[in-house]
Amino acid sequence: MRHTISVLVDNEFGVLSRVSGLFSGRGFNIESLCVAETMDPKVSLMTIVTSGDHKVIEQITKQLNKLINVIKVNDLTGQEYIERELALIKVHSTEDHRAEILRIVDIFRAKVVDVGPKSYTVEITGDEEKIRAISELLRPFGIKEVARTGRIALARSLKLKG
Amino acid sequence: MRHTISVLVDNEFGVLSRVSGLFSGRGFNIESLCVAETMDPKVSLMTIVTSGDHKVIEQITKQLNKLINVIKVNDLTGQEYIERELALIKVHSTEDHRAEILRIVDIFRAKVVDVGPKSYTVEITGDEEKIRAISELLRPFGIKEVARTGRIALARSLKLKG
Repeated sequence: MRHTISVLVDNEFGVLSRVSGLFSGRGFNIESLCVAETMDPKVSLMTIVTSGDHKVIEQITKQLNKLINVIKVNDLTGQEYIERELALIKVHSTEDHRAEILRIVDIFRAKVVDVGPKSYTVEITGDEEKIRAISELLRPFGIKEVARTGRIALARSLKLKG
Repeated sequence: MRHTISVLVDNEFGVLSRVSGLFSGRGFNIESLCVAETMDPKVSLMTIVTSGDHKVIEQITKQLNKLINVIKVNDLTGQEYIERELALIKVHSTEDHRAEILRIVDIFRAKVVDVGPKSYTVEITGDEEKIRAISELLRPFGIKEVARTGRIALARSLKLKG
């Protein structure tokens, strides 16, 4: 099962290495991880996406809670939350294909943020499915480079479940 | 000096921990880090933002290159590149302030992606300055939560420098 875990940590060196070490020490691959400062520059927020057995994840979150420099752990799995990620996709754009690429960009409400003689760089935000969909549609033109942030998530304000 | 470093790695457990360990082992704080799969699910791309002496960063990138599972290291500093990050900002929105918050959202071409009885969640993409600017403008209304991805970057297609 896939888990999205938010971890609030002190913005100090070594914290990322210790947190990621807890996952790898148990053979868990981190699918994506983002870490950046919050409004308080002394505190950073990590968003970790990983897949695995619920019980083992529970053990890991317990151990995370025990780490110095870990302020708060929140496993968003099972809660209602908004998730988003950002991708930059550099796609090969010959004259024949430009119109079609721009149509796709338009449909996905993406943006062309850089243009070269033979390429467009497209910025897209959305959930994982949306990023995957536009990537698959652009793939036939030739994707030169991709950079993805991985997911961030916030709990929804209005709880409709349960 | 601030450095933005792209690291292409095998998508295996333990890699993130080893890479981040190289930075923390030398007392370098990572300001932000993103890691996610590329178009090839066996390969992930990390984008690391850190500040420090150029020589030490050079040593770190050399050591990164020697790590098993590291495919390619690219220090984008000094090159022309596009950088973007994504933030979700949950802001307190009483009836009195909603119109003003929506005006700010509009000016920044941000989006309201979730609404609660007393809050808006705003999605914004841009460079660091833009994220900081909207955060500062929203701060007086009361920011409840922030999640940021940290930066991703791709080299520009057209080189105008040098």
